[in-house]
Amino acid sequence: MIIVLKPQPTPEQIQHVLERIEDLGFTPHLSQGVSRTIIGVIGDERKLQATPLQAIAGVEQVIPVLKPFKLASREFRPEPSVFEVKGIRIGGGHLAVIAGPCAIEGEEIFLEIAEAVRAAGANVLRGGAFKPRTSPYSFQGLGEDGLKILKTAGDRLGMPTVTEIMDPRQLDLVCAYADMLQVGARNMQNFDLLKEVGRVDKPVLLKRGMSATVKDLLMSAEYVLSQGNHKVILCERGVRSFEDSTRNMMDLSAIPNAQGQSHLPIIADPSHATGRPDLIPAMARAAVAAGADGVHVEVHTCPEQALSDGPQALLPEPFAALVDDLRRLAEVLGRTIDACDGVAAV
Amino acid sequence: MIIVLKPQPTPEQIQHVLERIEDLGFTPHLSQGVSRTIIGVIGDERKLQATPLQAIAGVEQVIPVLKPFKLASREFRPEPSVFEVKGIRIGGGHLAVIAGPCAIEGEEIFLEIAEAVRAAGANVLRGGAFKPRTSPYSFQGLGEDGLKILKTAGDRLGMPTVTEIMDPRQLDLVCAYADMLQVGARNMQNFDLLKEVGRVDKPVLLKRGMSATVKDLLMSAEYVLSQGNHKVILCERGVRSFEDSTRNMMDLSAIPNAQGQSHLPIIADPSHATGRPDLIPAMARAAVAAGADGVHVEVHTCPEQALSDGPQALLPEPFAALVDDLRRLAEVLGRTIDACDGVAAV
Amino acid sequence: MIIVLKPQPTPEQIQHVLERIEDLGFTPHLSQGVSRTIIGVIGDERKLQATPLQAIAGVEQVIPVLKPFKLASREFRPEPSVFEVKGIRIGGGHLAVIAGPCAIEGEEIFLEIAEAVRAAGANVLRGGAFKPRTSPYSFQGLGEDGLKILKTAGDRLGMPTVTEIMDPRQLDLVCAYADMLQVGARNMQNFDLLKEVGRVDKPVLLKRGMSATVKDLLMSAEYVLSQGNHKVILCERGVRSFEDSTRNMMDLSAIPNAQGQSHLPIIADPSHATGRPDLIPAMARAAVAAGADGVHVEVHTCPEQALSDGPQALLPEPFAALVDDLRRLAEVLGRTIDACDGVAAV
Amino acid sequence: MIIVLKPQPTPEQIQHVLERIEDLGFTPHLSQGVSRTIIGVIGDERKLQATPLQAIAGVEQVIPVLKPFKLASREFRPEPSVFEVKGIRIGGGHLAVIAGPCAIEGEEIFLEIAEAVRAAGANVLRGGAFKPRTSPYSFQGLGEDGLKILKTAGDRLGMPTVTEIMDPRQLDLVCAYADMLQVGARNMQNFDLLKEVGRVDKPVLLKRGMSATVKDLLMSAEYVLSQGNHKVILCERGVRSFEDSTRNMMDLSAIPNAQGQSHLPIIADPSHATGRPDLIPAMARAAVAAGADGVHVEVHTCPEQALSDGPQALLPEPFAALVDDLRRLAEVLGRTIDACDGVAAV
Repeated sequence: MIIVLKPQPTPEQIQHVLERIEDLGFTPHLSQGVSRTIIGVIGDERKLQATPLQAIAGVEQVIPVLKPFKLASREFRPEPSVFEVKGIRIGGGHLAVIAGPCAIEGEEIFLEIAEAVRAAGANVLRGGAFKPRTSPYSFQGLGEDGLKILKTAGDRLGMPTVTEIMDPRQLDLVCAYADMLQVGARNMQNFDLLKEVGRVDKPVLLKRGMSATVKDLLMSAEYVLSQGNHKVILCERGVRSFEDSTRNMMDLSAIPNAQGQSHLPIIADPSHATGRPDLIPAMARAAVAAGADGVHVEVHTCPEQALSDGPQALLPEPFAALVDDLRRLAEVLGRTIDACDGVAAV
Repeated sequence: MIIVLKPQPTPEQIQHVLERIEDLGFTPHLSQGVSRTIIGVIGDERKLQATPLQAIAGVEQVIPVLKPFKLASREFRPEPSVFEVKGIRIGGGHLAVIAGPCAIEGEEIFLEIAEAVRAAGANVLRGGAFKPRTSPYSFQGLGEDGLKILKTAGDRLGMPTVTEIMDPRQLDLVCAYADMLQVGARNMQNFDLLKEVGRVDKPVLLKRGMSATVKDLLMSAEYVLSQGNHKVILCERGVRSFEDSTRNMMDLSAIPNAQGQSHLPIIADPSHATGRPDLIPAMARAAVAAGADGVHVEVHTCPEQALSDGPQALLPEPFAALVDDLRRLAEVLGRTIDACDGVAAV
Repeated sequence: MIIVLKPQPTPEQIQHVLERIEDLGFTPHLSQGVSRTIIGVIGDERKLQATPLQAIAGVEQVIPVLKPFKLASREFRPEPSVFEVKGIRIGGGHLAVIAGPCAIEGEEIFLEIAEAVRAAGANVLRGGAFKPRTSPYSFQGLGEDGLKILKTAGDRLGMPTVTEIMDPRQLDLVCAYADMLQVGARNMQNFDLLKEVGRVDKPVLLKRGMSATVKDLLMSAEYVLSQGNHKVILCERGVRSFEDSTRNMMDLSAIPNAQGQSHLPIIADPSHATGRPDLIPAMARAAVAAGADGVHVEVHTCPEQALSDGPQALLPEPFAALVDDLRRLAEVLGRTIDACDGVAAV
Repeated sequence: MIIVLKPQPTPEQIQHVLERIEDLGFTPHLSQGVSRTIIGVIGDERKLQATPLQAIAGVEQVIPVLKPFKLASREFRPEPSVFEVKGIRIGGGHLAVIAGPCAIEGEEIFLEIAEAVRAAGANVLRGGAFKPRTSPYSFQGLGEDGLKILKTAGDRLGMPTVTEIMDPRQLDLVCAYADMLQVGARNMQNFDLLKEVGRVDKPVLLKRGMSATVKDLLMSAEYVLSQGNHKVILCERGVRSFEDSTRNMMDLSAIPNAQGQSHLPIIADPSHATGRPDLIPAMARAAVAAGADGVHVEVHTCPEQALSDGPQALLPEPFAALVDDLRRLAEVLGRTIDACDGVAAV
């Protein structure tokens, strides 16, 4: 940590800062230049972060040097983490292809979509039972009935499943039915929820908040890891921006950026990032070329009848063409996509 | 709702859209121009929003005409709402001056700060018992012990109190001790939490999310209102932007913007918006001049020892000078600040 | 300047950085901690900025400590600058009230608007002769004919005038007719234009770019100052954001933020910042309460017939009511608004 | 164009809007619903855009239906445009690989870099002679001397060249030496400059402004096209955002987004978008996978000595590895990269 003092600090101000640092158990290191006086702090600065040195009179800025996360960092674990869910590997060159409808709307339609995405090459099945809708008057999901349908489909097709959890009180229920828990963008900093999913033994798909930096995302992952659950899969899904022709702005640089700092896998969700079926395939291809450990794509057999986010769903046929593209790109780039080989579909 | 078709739609496409609209119980209204065909939909479009007409082949864009919120709107209630908490009126020209430390750190220090803000003219006392910290290693709040201290201080000083609730499971606890519930920026779209606070009979201070539009904020208020609790006080507290010299970007236009669309009071929090004590007084004055129904300011007697957000806290003396400024501005603008007149402090 | 090395640097890397710094004529100051090695650089770091120390192997980050501007800084000139244009003082507690139509459309209509804004209390007359329009098919301004009309109106009403310059080739022309030169948001980093207006002896109204930080704005001011023209008036006019209900997001914290770092006056333009007449008066009041050295408001007698930006223009009557409000706020805050007392209007 | 009236308009208001539309030569089309009255306007709405219908009393919003650009649109030209510069095709599946240093610093070093990028497979040579620097105290480029060096290198290596033009007064000079003109992000809305480059017969590389939407970028292209020069190559180079770990946020969705609306080629510049050599290769690969018509990469043989933007330059060796990757990706995706086969290097 580096403390920069304001111009012409008094000797008392300097002394006060030095004493505060020593009181906290750290060693200060004073450099007095012509224009500025700088104090370096030697020691594990993570312990210092709760201490508002910035508020001391005479201090101009406090510059952290170390990253504020630890368990999520490459320094803690240099090799990429690989997680396995029902035989599907995610991370370290193994790509997840997560697909399904936004919401589970009924058993028949869900099974139809599930079979279509499995046939196209998806290796994880998604579907929402609890839906975070911006309007209280919109369809809020089928709840436990939806979870049962998800499990039925996953079992029948031999596919691992993922679904969103929105409330700590849903934890036991969701864990009883799904193989992976999704924490949505709107809950990325719902710290109580993060702590709860940190106590179970299922992978957590953690989506980047709409105004979260990559560091914020890694700090939220750290919350989960700090509770004992080390299986976190990050997900870039677009952030808010001034560009009004797409639903969000997809920040693909977050993929190599997170991978450079963290061992955790990171996938990309072009459906929520763009909100536009005409852009989803190009952005899914781009994500894989950027090094993503997988993609998350919403698929529906009849988007115009979908109860949630229909306009951004791909039809099964273009989705299948996209998975073919992803496979060819993965091959060129030396990566693989595991296939589900449980009970046969159809 | 207006549906714009792509150039040169086929008669079948037009027919299909018209039928879908009629199936949903609405009356379509077709206009065929030289460059585009447009279909107006007559009826309460809020019922249509779950229906993804956008996904129909041949549809270029779907443009909503009505606002998606109802109970929060000026159309539902033309007069500004005024809420009273322990004798302090908020809204409709009555300003809240909410102040206190970020976190409740102990009884002695909290009472010291509470007395200071009351003496300076604050009329609502704030303090956090459950803290949403970006790092799992930072101080997380005193929990119920903190709530007890808050209640003790509020009772002793005759001040209404407000504190943050982060988790639906904290509802009974927080309601047992505090007069007003704060939903923080990070939970503005924690819809399960919104539903819970919508079931109690206490005012809810709803802070704008860091990437929420004014419409998003009003939709979150609508969640609370739709459950029966009509006492929502909105709060502008800055949004994320590219400007890196302030913690967030304070969007003061949100004040008149929300007031034009909604009857709900809206206050401003320059502490979180700027994160800089040198900017807080100017921005609090500006908020009142923009028409805010109050301000929310963090105050600490020793910012450099604060366990949370110390660098952005005002000292009691500049806070008192600020309240004086606000009173003079309020007078010029024809507004009032209620005083706490319960049991005298000190 | 502080140079943070990557973890475990080799002795050769450290040596190489130290040598590079010494080669450049500076004194390095080495601190080796447990987790990171830090090198402080003593000397005027502005000379170092062209040198990409960041690119040296083993360097993790380079953190500047000093501000990159000099002539614009409070350190260079602690007192606020006050500029006088035809008897109207701007800065240091003297407020500019700049008003007029977006574009000069003809002599009769311009004089009508000019008289209205003068009668309402405006003290600087604005009007565009060269218009930066996003569409090549929109009205581009009257050019020199417009400038002549501007001068005629300014002379007749005894008001100083300001108009936009878009191209270095327009310099002599614009200087021949106007008292103040405006550099628009889109040209804030048109460095050749900044250099040109830096060579004349007229005040420059420099508008903040739509994605410029406050520091960027001050750096652009520094361009003008560095050429010899020390009369720069900054202008906050909103920045791009995700909020889609206003034209831009007005960043009023830029007012006290710039004033804290720079002696230059800074005014606010709520017309371009919000694009909404229903928000302009509230935001103009807020700007003055935030400490702005003036406001810039577009006024038109018939907005629906305006050739440019009509929808955001105030009518003369609400503009006059606004100036009354500003006068009362200025009085409470100890500031003044100079009146034009040249040749009487009407 | 669709005009939505405020709730309960008076018959006079409706009549006034209808008359204004007819006065302008268009046919209005009235739809009166329960909640809102809507007026559709039939005709080429581009002619209406200068008319501020929004400002008419009783009008709530005016919604354009057609795109505001014409010559740049797919409707004007359905097939992708392909431009040839000295034998190198750009667009329609032919990728530009533009490389070179940020600034031309001297003949020897420039030739060294030029040979390196040509050997690696670049097919266009870049180098800046006029540099837009945020500080007036930074290196501003060699001017005409730099242009001469650029031409010498291009001739010797048989490579087409591109360099930035910042000021209309530089037009003849830059055209005398370079094969392609670059308009930088900061000048994307320097409309006088756009008009000037629209009058010459050289391709214009038009970079997206830091807060420009895709529509804004296409409108700026329209400026150039409207003057007669139909050779515009768009360039995504990142936009401003809250993410502070990269220089800008690269919006790769702009690639398929622009291509869907326009026939113009669009390339990507990961150097300026990320500012980080560790992210540039991944983002260049992603750009090609997203469908970009080329990449623009800064390369320097000694980044730590570069006079401008050194920290973001790739060394020749990783650049060569990147071009190999791009070639393999292009092949999988059915695209090609033309090679320079003029006078052999060295």
